[in-house]
Parts: sequence; structure tokens; C-alpha cells
Amino acid sequence: LVIAKTKATGGTALLPELLAYTSSLAADRTLLREDLAGSLAHLTMLETVGLVPKEDAHAIRLELSTLAEEHARDLAWLPDEEDVHMAIEARLTEKLGERAGLLHTARSRNDQIALDLRLFVREGGRLALTEIAATLEAISARAKTDRDVLLPAYTHRQRAMPITGGFFWAAFGAALMRDVDAFAFAVSQADVLPLGVGAIAGTSLPIDRENVRALLGFSKISLNGLDTVGDRDFELDFTFAAARLMTHVGRIATDVVDFSSSEFGFLKLSDAIACGSSMMPQKKNPDLFELLRGKGARITGNLLGLLALVGKLPSGYGRDLQEDRASIFDARDAVLGALPMLRVGLANVTFDRARCLAAIDNDYMQATDIAEAMVLRHKTPFRTAYRAVGALVKTAQEMSVPLSKVTAAQAAAIDARLDEEVLAAADPRSSASRKTSAGGTAPARVDEQVAELELAAIRARALAEKIPSLDRILASLVAQKPQK
Amino acid sequence: LVIAKTKATGGTALLPELLAYTSSLAADRTLLREDLAGSLAHLTMLETVGLVPKEDAHAIRLELSTLAEEHARDLAWLPDEEDVHMAIEARLTEKLGERAGLLHTARSRNDQIALDLRLFVREGGRLALTEIAATLEAISARAKTDRDVLLPAYTHRQRAMPITGGFFWAAFGAALMRDVDAFAFAVSQADVLPLGVGAIAGTSLPIDRENVRALLGFSKISLNGLDTVGDRDFELDFTFAAARLMTHVGRIATDVVDFSSSEFGFLKLSDAIACGSSMMPQKKNPDLFELLRGKGARITGNLLGLLALVGKLPSGYGRDLQEDRASIFDARDAVLGALPMLRVGLANVTFDRARCLAAIDNDYMQATDIAEAMVLRHKTPFRTAYRAVGALVKTAQEMSVPLSKVTAAQAAAIDARLDEEVLAAADPRSSASRKTSAGGTAPARVDEQVAELELAAIRARALAEKIPSLDRILASLVAQKPQK
Amino acid sequence: LVIAKTKATGGTALLPELLAYTSSLAADRTLLREDLAGSLAHLTMLETVGLVPKEDAHAIRLELSTLAEEHARDLAWLPDEEDVHMAIEARLTEKLGERAGLLHTARSRNDQIALDLRLFVREGGRLALTEIAATLEAISARAKTDRDVLLPAYTHRQRAMPITGGFFWAAFGAALMRDVDAFAFAVSQADVLPLGVGAIAGTSLPIDRENVRALLGFSKISLNGLDTVGDRDFELDFTFAAARLMTHVGRIATDVVDFSSSEFGFLKLSDAIACGSSMMPQKKNPDLFELLRGKGARITGNLLGLLALVGKLPSGYGRDLQEDRASIFDARDAVLGALPMLRVGLANVTFDRARCLAAIDNDYMQATDIAEAMVLRHKTPFRTAYRAVGALVKTAQEMSVPLSKVTAAQAAAIDARLDEEVLAAADPRSSASRKTSAGGTAPARVDEQVAELELAAIRARALAEKIPSLDRILASLVAQKPQK
Amino acid sequence: LVIAKTKATGGTALLPELLAYTSSLAADRTLLREDLAGSLAHLTMLETVGLVPKEDAHAIRLELSTLAEEHARDLAWLPDEEDVHMAIEARLTEKLGERAGLLHTARSRNDQIALDLRLFVREGGRLALTEIAATLEAISARAKTDRDVLLPAYTHRQRAMPITGGFFWAAFGAALMRDVDAFAFAVSQADVLPLGVGAIAGTSLPIDRENVRALLGFSKISLNGLDTVGDRDFELDFTFAAARLMTHVGRIATDVVDFSSSEFGFLKLSDAIACGSSMMPQKKNPDLFELLRGKGARITGNLLGLLALVGKLPSGYGRDLQEDRASIFDARDAVLGALPMLRVGLANVTFDRARCLAAIDNDYMQATDIAEAMVLRHKTPFRTAYRAVGALVKTAQEMSVPLSKVTAAQAAAIDARLDEEVLAAADPRSSASRKTSAGGTAPARVDEQVAELELAAIRARALAEKIPSLDRILASLVAQKPQK
Repeated sequence: LVIAKTKATGGTALLPELLAYTSSLAADRTLLREDLAGSLAHLTMLETVGLVPKEDAHAIRLELSTLAEEHARDLAWLPDEEDVHMAIEARLTEKLGERAGLLHTARSRNDQIALDLRLFVREGGRLALTEIAATLEAISARAKTDRDVLLPAYTHRQRAMPITGGFFWAAFGAALMRDVDAFAFAVSQADVLPLGVGAIAGTSLPIDRENVRALLGFSKISLNGLDTVGDRDFELDFTFAAARLMTHVGRIATDVVDFSSSEFGFLKLSDAIACGSSMMPQKKNPDLFELLRGKGARITGNLLGLLALVGKLPSGYGRDLQEDRASIFDARDAVLGALPMLRVGLANVTFDRARCLAAIDNDYMQATDIAEAMVLRHKTPFRTAYRAVGALVKTAQEMSVPLSKVTAAQAAAIDARLDEEVLAAADPRSSASRKTSAGGTAPARVDEQVAELELAAIRARALAEKIPSLDRILASLVAQKPQK
Repeated sequence: LVIAKTKATGGTALLPELLAYTSSLAADRTLLREDLAGSLAHLTMLETVGLVPKEDAHAIRLELSTLAEEHARDLAWLPDEEDVHMAIEARLTEKLGERAGLLHTARSRNDQIALDLRLFVREGGRLALTEIAATLEAISARAKTDRDVLLPAYTHRQRAMPITGGFFWAAFGAALMRDVDAFAFAVSQADVLPLGVGAIAGTSLPIDRENVRALLGFSKISLNGLDTVGDRDFELDFTFAAARLMTHVGRIATDVVDFSSSEFGFLKLSDAIACGSSMMPQKKNPDLFELLRGKGARITGNLLGLLALVGKLPSGYGRDLQEDRASIFDARDAVLGALPMLRVGLANVTFDRARCLAAIDNDYMQATDIAEAMVLRHKTPFRTAYRAVGALVKTAQEMSVPLSKVTAAQAAAIDARLDEEVLAAADPRSSASRKTSAGGTAPARVDEQVAELELAAIRARALAEKIPSLDRILASLVAQKPQK
Repeated sequence: LVIAKTKATGGTALLPELLAYTSSLAADRTLLREDLAGSLAHLTMLETVGLVPKEDAHAIRLELSTLAEEHARDLAWLPDEEDVHMAIEARLTEKLGERAGLLHTARSRNDQIALDLRLFVREGGRLALTEIAATLEAISARAKTDRDVLLPAYTHRQRAMPITGGFFWAAFGAALMRDVDAFAFAVSQADVLPLGVGAIAGTSLPIDRENVRALLGFSKISLNGLDTVGDRDFELDFTFAAARLMTHVGRIATDVVDFSSSEFGFLKLSDAIACGSSMMPQKKNPDLFELLRGKGARITGNLLGLLALVGKLPSGYGRDLQEDRASIFDARDAVLGALPMLRVGLANVTFDRARCLAAIDNDYMQATDIAEAMVLRHKTPFRTAYRAVGALVKTAQEMSVPLSKVTAAQAAAIDARLDEEVLAAADPRSSASRKTSAGGTAPARVDEQVAELELAAIRARALAEKIPSLDRILASLVAQKPQK
Repeated sequence: LVIAKTKATGGTALLPELLAYTSSLAADRTLLREDLAGSLAHLTMLETVGLVPKEDAHAIRLELSTLAEEHARDLAWLPDEEDVHMAIEARLTEKLGERAGLLHTARSRNDQIALDLRLFVREGGRLALTEIAATLEAISARAKTDRDVLLPAYTHRQRAMPITGGFFWAAFGAALMRDVDAFAFAVSQADVLPLGVGAIAGTSLPIDRENVRALLGFSKISLNGLDTVGDRDFELDFTFAAARLMTHVGRIATDVVDFSSSEFGFLKLSDAIACGSSMMPQKKNPDLFELLRGKGARITGNLLGLLALVGKLPSGYGRDLQEDRASIFDARDAVLGALPMLRVGLANVTFDRARCLAAIDNDYMQATDIAEAMVLRHKTPFRTAYRAVGALVKTAQEMSVPLSKVTAAQAAAIDARLDEEVLAAADPRSSASRKTSAGGTAPARVDEQVAELELAAIRARALAEKIPSLDRILASLVAQKPQK
């Protein structure tokens, strides 16, 4: 087949090295299911409106279905062509001759690739939502398990306040909840049928885009052909959602890597996930979490590559856009790879409760509690209380004792309002349970937070289920094939 | 005031050069209104729950209101401090003494800055939606004005098919419609109250976050303090929406720059926007559109900077996050700067209808129409028709004539189905009106598209109006001030 | 082999899904030659200093050489392992048993991978310099061919001044000359032996890094182990050089795409490189140049991904760094793919001299020449001359004639200094030849420029030849193998 | 003055809002010195070749010098114009009338801005090299002070091997040495005179670019005008050097932040740089190092913005390029801000030697030493020794004792070669001193490394001194002014 090589207009064929350089077929193989689904739906529509005779439609459908089945068994053969669309057309032509040409009626590669990519992103979003749901569940379970673990929270990598293990995990869950939103947004943006605008301006043939939309499970059809063929916003949205999610994964990984160091010692890695060193026999390394920490950078790079790619392009389709593929493939792989491995990772780390507790007993993290107790009991302006407790901390530091060992007399010498009842707040072990404000670390508050995470998991699953799976769509389109 | 300089704990003051380097006050001035609104709402809540006595609350409110008024008149004075929060606290202390310290009850700079930034993004989103609405209106008007202009559409920067001017502008409108979605998403993500989680873990004081939420017009309160103080996703969402919008602006600008070249000659710039050269007296340059084309790159860079900034950070707040400001300020300025100027630009370009028409008459852009006519009339498989028309084009090219000058006999010699009725599709001037499929360039279709753009403008305005304006919020909080 | 799975310390093996996720073997296969060269050099050194007995060294060398030969014939088999180093070690162990373990003496995967990557970058730089040289030659040849073509130069995409075809191509050559510098810099930064610092701190064994350096053809050895194992600057330098080069390729491609549009019509694509449309039989598209234009964005994204990856990492080696591979592979492929195809492309475009000439005759591009003639002849201040010529242009525009048709009387009415001799500069065809300042477009100047480009090509080749080729290094190391 | 507003050609003035939007004057003020130096040099050349009469040249020089002096005293007044070039021209015209127009002879804003930016980058590079030199000296001094401190080195954030404090600091110095190279490269790329190519194609006037080159201290003149006016590679090089340096600063900052946590406790911050918390009176935060860690992300973003900006632009000058300024300004500010503050930071942290020593005594970091001792003494294959020591570590871990407490009998039971002499390597305190390979952590090796750093500092200073300072250039050009 030589359409894309201008033989149709009597020109000579492309240079072979040029074909090799410009062909997107290697990348496009990833899109084969998408392309077949699109072709089958287009075919059914063409048949319905009478542009393809029933018998021809059946013959073409049979061949497309065969290819889909071969693909499912990893056996699909495709001729070398510029892209997946041409390769399928060439194969059809080999089998069906001129009749194969009916399929390309009222269709251009410009709207076809836009369709494939949208189906890919929608499917990727569906799977991402499912993975996020499973991860939210895993996080919720962890938060329950570690509900009463006490450990320090950090700001500026300095111990700040005692928190619970449940609160620690729930924080990451809260970030994941936003990822549900971002992927739902990305899917909503991809959920628009581009097929039917032809190369750019539509067609004079009596096609029915609504029919194709329904067959492929889209919510809307695209508004304007010139926009449709050059629009890659849905790829940006998807890659952005992935890059943003990966920053969340990276931040939890940073915490786990640090917390599993000898110095922190808060988390222990199980042997099943600890890696060794080729030179140092004593090492147990958190490679998995380091990789999870590092994986995001490339996706960020991909997003920016995509933005730089579309920036300044003229309207309409340009071949530059072919360079978009790798970014969304990477983005999907990163998310669908990281989340299951994160769950494996989280299932293989456990808190060392004793070390965690030692860390909160050994510092002055209850200082704010004392200041707040002073505010509550004596209506002291907070800043005044803050200064008094600052002096109290200084006294304790000079004596090298914990705050609870400063005597009532010493405290009173600083400020009379630092009385016994106020000083009762100096027990770091009860600090977390006192933080009962909404969003706080008190166990009751964390229970509420975990309940929200569980709801979010349910919501994410529900969103995923509302998105038609590509396999289901393909199966239903194949199912229309006639009996031999 | 020396809180941030550790004097509270008895330590010495920061080095002055260090204070200069680390201070965010310069950038924070942009956030003064936001900070005051947050402080006033927090104060009202503290008063309501009894943590600040009524009289003190009134005194503090008076001072904050005075500052807001000075700021509105560009007269606000602030002492040199680490950041805007400390500067305001210092000023209050100067005026009110110890009582000023009441305001910081149950509040940390960590949740305060998160609030300021969310208010900033929400307001920026509100203004962006308003600008997008106005631009959609301008685009719709242009599309109506140029409804019947005929010009080529391009793919691969080669003439592809005749389209109408209305269709051309509507394509850009379709892109802007997606920007409504992206900014609406960004606003929805920013629409969460962070205040009340303290430094990280909440507070033991009986605050009422719901009260603050209502006063500041947020839809929700944040779920988990550890997440809240380190979360900058809403900044990513806003900067992404801006970067994505700027790619749309950049693409329309690319078209206008090209179309206003001598070579294309489709668009004429009015003298009011044409720039000159300092060396070449004959030049009339489209500088405005070049700047609009170039402005997006920096916002893309900002987005990357923000993603790289948060990637790999530990959980909770770290001072690194202070480096976030410039990106969202730039993003807002870029959008609020570009859209009005784009409207100015579009109001000052006009189609040269004759040159546009000459371009479509001079090429072979109606080839697809002929092929489609052949498909429709003779049920020819599209690929067969495509080849026949390809041969027809070749014949015409060899004769150096337009397609309409190829004789019936010559056409029939290629393929008998290229009959008179089919060849009637060779009129390029009627090509556009034949593209009646949904999303096509036929005027009736474009009218529908324009109607959608007008609806989108209404929707964007409605979304913007549902977002409380910062000035309105601030005024209502100030209005609670007691009479002197 | 289970080193990396902590069995050495008695731990259990890694989870299989974790091994699959964390393994870099797939990417590392690209580095097999590099790794073998490194191992062979290390082996020779160990033998030389007496850490590996001669006989064992020979046995190991034989196995490594066999693997190298299999690899050259694409037949290399490697067991599934965490990375290429472990895979080779595992294979050796299978063949040689315990003796294989001698090879890992005084070596860690941390310094091994640093070596592989440096060898890869050095080789990539060598090939890039060779390709740049060839492209500079092609550009120089084109500049000579098109030495006397006259066409407009553009600023702001508006016709600015007449230039020659030679000048046009030489501009792109000038950019490529800077790429010689950037790749030479990247190679110089990669040209440092990292091997021999062990995991991080060096070794207590009496190794000889100078020996390894000489065998692998490096100029220097790395200074400090802690820095060496975590340093990826050489990857940044290489990827930066690639991203920067690709912007040059992208800009020339932008010009070619525009110049081959119907509107400009300055360049004609030969059929051998013009692509067709699947829907529009008349199209001849410059897909190759569009891809060349678009290829750079991804490399820019890769560079940024790499910077984001290393940013904020702790010192020393972390597994995050494994995510560096894809960026340098992409960077090399982009450069080594684009430059030959660019040469193919340039060999298949030709200037349409008539259209180019028509463009310069049709505009007012000689305005600056007239102003300069006025300056030269009458010592008129340039700005005064500029205004006078501006008025002259306006007069001509109002009359719709070229500048040369304005009468002497009309000119004199504007400014008496616009006399006949000055107006002689109004011939656009001689405009280019008058621009004789250094760097100008006069043919004599362009000849000098082309001579510089030719020198730069020679310099680039000389630089490339001074870099030892990986194959040569590998062959010389293999050649030390004993006769069977 | 209205040149840039097309009034010269009889057109009307630009819309005021458009002028406000497109003007680069605000950013350009930073470039005032550069622009004046360029104008003065251009003027001297014009005078020398006779294009500007001596008297007029003197008058113009006087005005330019006055402006330079006002600027030095921060008193320079400039009229509102499109850019700094026009503003200066307008001011001159106000003072000198028509004669001012002589200065613009044979010059365009396109080559003028290229000159200003190259002068800026060259000066920025000079200052950066000076700062790097000072930082290398500071690092060298620190390395000497902490020569004998023992602390763990980390890979994967797990303790790996004992190293010395000197080795730790020298690692960062080694990275800075590469920054000398990168900035030297950036300066070499900027070191090319662009002025004299006019708008694009050169000039017909008899200018002398060599003269201007010498006056401004450049090494070369640019090759081709079309390339020259659109080339921003030197900005990319500078921003890249800055982004790369900032990753080094970020990594040392990451280590300092971690090492100054309670958990590591290796470094103590002096009160002079420790920041407090507004809510938690006990906190001493390493804000400075967090900011240094975070500052790089924005520069990375700037680099991307710049690459995305130039990517795909047509050849020659386009107004898009105006968007380049902020990136190089940011890049310079980041580097010149961070390095002095890093020195302040390093002068205010001290090792807690006892905590460092405890960390190396408490772990199994000498395991590799024992394996190497076994290799050295018994010619054991390293991997065999590695496994034996792995078993030894396991035994010690099960007994909860350090390696030195495993008995000779227990060791011999694992492998007879683990004899007394081999086990002598179990002293972690002597581990570092045994790593005597080049690049290793043994004090003698580190002394060599520090000597290299000191040489690099000298080299950096020498490089900086060879670059003419902008102030010096400007002063010498001003000095030519006639006596009043």
C-alpha cells in the first residue's frame, strides 16, 4: 500500500531510510486495540448509514476481529508501514482487495489517531483510578493498624509534634484523594469522540458521529474539526495527573527511605524487599522506595516535553504531533507500575514502636501543648505563652532534662501561669490525643479521616467502573461479526 | 518582633544577611490582602469560640482593617521581617502591645501561608475565568463576522481543504472551552480551607474551622494537617491550567503571525498594533502576536520548576516551599495579561478576503470532495476513489490548470465514475458548504459551534461569579469592625 | 547469583515482582559493550597488580571476550538479574565457578555503572561530533550551490532584507559550529575514569587506577569517591548538548516547512521525501521536517527530567539514579537520528529561484540601503535618513509601485538628499551584494563564512578522532586474550 | 521618539496598552550599563571610520557618560519606551536633537540586544567564577578543619562505610570544580561580538567590527548575521551552568538538613543561622539550607522555559525572544545569591564528633574491610570473601554485638580464612585510613584532593580575572570623553 507515500498521486515512493525514520509503527503497536475498536465502530456506522454495503462490512469486520484475536494472543502480524492505521489497511487490502478501501470512507489518519490516543488515555485513566482505589484501601488499612503508634512529625526535618501512625499514613491518603480528582478530570477531558471530522474540516458524506460516539462509549462529540485534529490537551491532562501523582509517591518514598535509615530507625523493611550491595555485605537497602522516589522526575520531564511540543505549533495537524506517544505511554506505565509496587512496599515495612516512642520522649515536642494549655486556662495571649514556654524549654535544655522534669518552682519563676495544671500538658505521650481539632492527629479525628479515605476509594472505584473498559468495547464490537 | 529569629527560646538573632536572603517579604506583599482576610476570619472565629475577648478582638480588627485600607491606597507600611505574617504581627504589636499576640492563637505560619496561597489561586482562577469568558465572546463575535470568509485550512503547513473564517476562529474557541474546565478544576482544588491545622498536627484549643471556612467562602476544610501544610497541588493545578491555556494562545498567535506575512497575506494588522523596526523603515511587525506566542514557554518552565520543587520533599512543611510563589504569580500575570491583549489583537486584524479566496482557487483542495462525491454516487470504495482523484490531480498539474478545467473526457479516461455530476464537486468555493458533518466547516455547523462557544462564555462567567471575590470577602470581614 | 538479593547476608530472596520492577537489565543491555570493556580493563589491572592470578585472569578474559563476540553478533545470552553487572557476573559464575568472584575485587556496581555511563556518553559524543562534521560539510556544499540565490530574510516573519541562499544556509552552519563546542565540552566532562572508588570511599586493596585509565583511554581519574558515585553531571552535559542541537535542527526545520508551503514557495521538496495524506490525494507534505522540528521537545523534557532527578538527592549513590538511563539513550538517538535525516532532507529540497526573486522584487526591502546611502553620501544622521526613507516608502505604497518607480522629483520633495545617486540603492537585486560588513550577506563575506564552516567540520572530525572508539578499546582489551 | 511605533512610516502610534504590554523597559533597566558600554564602543568606532563627525561623537559620548554616572548613583531617568535602546535614544534626542540619530548608524536593536545580553552573561559568568573560587576555598578550609572527623558515608541513605569529614566536604568541592568548567564554557560561548550585523544581513556602511570587538574585550566576532540576531545559545549555556551548579548546592543542602536533624545529629547549626517556629517555641530549623535545597528547581524551570522558547522559532529575530530576559536574570541571581549564603551556612555548622563516631562504632560498616583483608591475605575471590563476611555479619547481628566481638572460633567456623589478622580489619575507626586508593577517604588521599580544590580555586580566579569586568570596560569608554 502506498497511500502515505504519495504513489496515489503518481509520485514515487518514499526513501526507505525516511520511512524508517518517520514511521510511528513501533510505538503505535501499543495502540492496536484502540485502533481496531475505532475501525470497528466506524465500520458499523458506515454500514448503518449505507455507505458500506452489509456484505462488505461483514467481510471487513471479520478481518478486523481476526486481527484483534491474534493480537490478544500476541500473534498479530502487521506489514511495515508509516503507522498503525496504514498497516491495518494494508493487511486488509491483502485479504480483501479493493473492498478494504471502503473502511477509510469519511475518515482521515488525523481523526483516527486522535481517537486512538483518547481511547488510550481513557483506558489509562480507568486503570489508574482502579490502582488509586486499591492504594487508598491499603493506606486506610495501614492507618488503622498503626492507629496508636506515636512518632514525631517533622517540619524542616526537625521534630515538631508527636503524631500517630494513623495520621502519618492518612496524610498520604489525603494526597491520593486529590489524584482521584486529577485523573477523573483527565478522563473527562479525554471523553470526547474526535472521529468524524476527517482531515480537518469534516466530510460531505452523510456520516453519523452520534452513532460512533455511542458505540465507543464517549459522552460527547468534538466541536470543531480544526481544533480536534491538533488538540492534545487530553494528553497533557493525563500526563499532568501522572506527574502530580508521582510527586505524592515520591514524597512518601522520601519519608520511608529516611525513616528506614539507622538514624531514624522508625520503619523496618522486611527481607522480601530489602536489597543488598555488591560490595558491602552488611547492607539492607530500600531500593524500591528510592526508585519510587526517582520515578517521578522523568514523568515531569515528559509533561514538559509535551507542552514544549504543542507550544507554538500552527493550528491543525502537523507531523510533529507524532512525538506525543512516548510521553503518555511513560505516564501510564509509571502510574500503573508505581502504585502496586508501593502497596508491596507498604506491606513490607513495619513501625519500630519503641524507637518511635523514644524519639518523642527525648525531645521538647510538647512545648506547644503547654503554651496552648496556658492560653486555655489563663487567657494568656498566645505569643506571651509561646515566649514563656520558650524560656521553659531553655531552662530544661540547660539542665539537660525533659520538660516534665522542670520543677513547679522553676516554671513559676518564669511565669506564674505555668502552674501545675498547665504543666500537665508536658506529657508527650498524650500530646497527640489532645489535638482534637478537625484535621488533627487525635485518634478520633484520624478515624474520621480514614473513613473519608475509604469513601474516596469507593468513589474512585465507582468512577473507574463508569468508564467503559477497552476490552469490553472491543468485545462488543467484535461480537457483531457474522457467523461463518 | 523576634519570634522567627529564635529569640523566644533565648537564642540570638539571625544574621542580617541571612534574614535578607531568607525573607519572603518582597514576594509576600502580593499576598497582603489574602493574609489580612485570613487573619480577620481567624480573629472572628477566635472571638466566637471565646479564645479572644471581644474587646481585644475589636482592637485587633481595627488595626487589621486600617492596614487593609492603607493597602488599598498603596500606603501600607510593614516592618522588615521574615515574611508577611511576621510583618503584620510586628506591626500589630507595635500598636497594641501584648494583646496582638492573641491573634496567633491556634495558628502557625504553615497553615497561614497555605491559606494565603489558596486564596490567591482561587482569586486568580476567578479572574482567569472572567477573562476566558470575555475572550470566548470576542472569538464568537469574530466567528460571526467572518462567517463566510473562505480560506484554506492547513495540515503540515500545506493547504488542505477550504474552510470558513468562522470555522477558523471557532477552533480557537473550542480550545478555550477546555480552559474553562481546567481553571474550574484548579479552583475546585484550591477551594479547601487549610487554616486550623496549626503547624502540622492540629491544636488542643477549641477552634471552629467550619466557622472560618464559612467566613472565607470555602467549600470544604482540609482533611489532614500533615498533608495540608506540605500540599501545593493547587498551585500545580493552577500553573498547569495557565501553561495549557498559554499553549492555546501561542498556537493562535502562530497562525496570526504566519497569516499576516506577505506570503500568506490573509490577515492585515491595523496600524494601531503594528510595530516598526529601528533600522528598516518599511517594516510593520506583528510583535504583539510574537510575544503572545512566546509567553507560554516561561509558564511551562514555571510548572516544571514547581513540580521539581515539591518532588522528593519529605512530608510536612519545609522552607523549600517558599520558592513556590514566583511560579503562581507569573502564571496569573501571564493569563491575565495575555487574554485582554489577545482581544486587542484580534480586534485589530482583518481578513483580506480576496487573498484568501485566491488561495483556495489556486490549489487542489477540493480533491477530497470529488472523491467523496464518487463514493456517494457510485459506491466506489473510498481508497479507489482517492486513487482516481489522485490521477486527476496529476493530470491537472501536468496541464497547469485547476481541477475544474480537466475535461470530462480526460476524467473519464482515468475512471468512468469521474462523471459530470461527480466533477461538479470540483468547485472549491462550495467545498466548505458541503462539509455538513457535525464539527464540520459548513456555515450551519459553524453556527452551532458558535452557539456552543457563547454558552461556554456564559458558563465561565457563572463559574466565576460563584467564586467569592477576595475584595468582597475582605470588605465583609472589615465591615465587622466596631464604630470608634 | 543472589548478591543483590541479600542472600549473602542470610536474608531471603527479593520478591519476584520487585525484582522485575527494580531491574534495570532491559535498559542496561544497551550498555553491554561498555560494561565488558570496563570489566576487561579492570581485570587486566587486577592481574597486573597481582590481585588476580594470571591463569584465572585468562579464564575470565576468555569468557568476557566470548560474550563480547556473541554480543557483536547479537547472540548474547544473559540471565535475569537486577542489572547488567550482576547478569554478567552470574554468567561468569556459571561458567567458571568461584573464580568468577575474583573479578569483583575492589569494585562496586556504583563505580561500575558510572564507568559504563561515561563510556556511553563519550562514545555518543564521538559519534555526534562525526555527524555534526558531516552535516557542516553538507551545509557548506549547499551554501556554495545556492551562493547566488536571492531571497528575503525575515524578522518577525516579515520580509526584512534581501539575502543570498548561501547566507541562509551558513546561518544554520554557524549554529552547528556551536554544537561542536557543546559536544566537545560534554565529552571533556565525561572523560574521567570513575572506576576504582568502590562503593564510595575507595578500597584498601592495592589497585592501580592509572592503569585502568590508560587502558580505557580516559584523560583523568576522578577526584573523590563520594562525589564520583553520585555524579551525573556528564549526563546532564550530554543531554544539554543534544537538546541545544535539536533546537537548531528544529529552527531550520521550521524554516523549511514554511518555505515549502504554497504561500512561500521558496523551496520544493523532491518526491522522494514528500509524504502524502490518507484522505487528501493532492497533498505533498514535509513530514520529515515536521518530525525534525518536533523531536527536540522530548529531549528538552529529558534534560529537565534528569535535572529534577538529581536535584535534592543526598550525596553518594541512591537507586533513584537508575532512572537516568532513558534520558541519555534518547538524547543520543535523537542526535544520531536527526542529523543524517536532516542531510537527506536538505539534499531533497531545492530553491525555486524565480519565486524567491519575485519576493524580493515585490517588497520594500531595500529601504535600509537607501537610508544608508544617504548617510554615506550626505552624512545625514541615520535616524533622519530613516525617516526620509520611511516617507518615501509611504509614497510608493500609496502609488502601489516599487521604490524604484518613485520619481526623482517626488523623492526630492521629501528630502533633497534623496538624490539620484542615493536612489540608485533602490535596486533590490544588488542589495545583498552591498552588505559587505563582516558577517554580512555579500557573497564575498559568505564565502569566508563557508570557509569557516569547512574548517569547523575538519575540527569536529579531528575532535572525534581523538576520542577512542568503544569498539577499538574493546578490541584491544579482548586482543589480550590467550590463544586457546 | 516614535520609531518603534511606525510613525516613521507615517503610521499612527501604538495603542498605549499595547506599548505597556510589549515594552521590555522594566526588565531592560538591568541591562543599562551593558547598553551604554555597547553604545559608547559603537560610537567610538563610527567616529574612527568617519561615519560620525568628531564633534558630534563627543557630544553624544558626553551624554552617554552622564547617563552612566547617573545610573551608578541610581539616579538615571529614562523616558517610557519600548525598550532600553529606544529609551536611551529618546533621551539623547531630547538633549541633542537630530544629532542623536547619528548613533543608530549601522546598528539595529536586534544586534544591540544580542550585545547587551552577551555582556550580561559574560559579566555574570565572571562573578559566578569568583564566587565559585571563594566557595572552593571555603570548602577546602572546612575539609582541613574536619580532616580527622570520622562519620558514616551513605548509599541508599543506609550507612555504608566510614569516611572522614575532609572527604565529605571534598566531595562537594569536586562537584564545584566541574562548575568552574561549565561557567568557563558558558563565558567562552558568550565571548563573541554580535554588534555590526545590523538587523540581520549586515550593512553597506564601512563599519569596523574588529574595532568594536577590541573596545569591548571580546575574543571573536560573530560569523553570520542571520544566525547572530536569533542566537540565544549563550543564554542556554549560562542558565544550564547555573541550573547544574544549583543541583550541587541542593545536594549538599540535603545532606546538611538531614545531618542536622535530631536523628542524625552529626551537624550542629549555630544560633546565628537557626530559624524558629511561630508556633513551636522549641524549634531550631535549618531554613537556610532548605532554601538552598529548593532554589535550584526554579532555575531548572527557567532553563526549560528558555529551551521551549527558542525551540521551533523561525530563523532570525522574532519578538518572542524578548521573553528570554527573566531566565538569565534569575539564573545569575540564584548563583550569586546562593554561594555566599552557602559559605555563611558552612561557617555556621560544626560536626558533633562524638555522635559521628558513635554512628560508625554502632554498625557493621567495616564489613568490606574484612572481606578485602581476606582477599589480600588469602587470595580469596572477592565474592567468596563477601559471602563469608556476610555470614559473619549475620552472626554478629544475631548476637547483637559489633563485629569486633565475634570470637575467633565463631569466625573460623564460617571460613577458616577469617583468621585473626583478617579480623583485625574489624576496627571501624581505622577503616577510613585503610582506603588509600586514589580518590579514597584515607587522610593522605584527602589531602591531595584538597590540594586539587585549592588549585581549582586559583584557576577559577584566574579565569575570572581574564574576563574584562563590565565596570572597567565602561570606565575606559567613558574616559574618552572630552573635557568640558
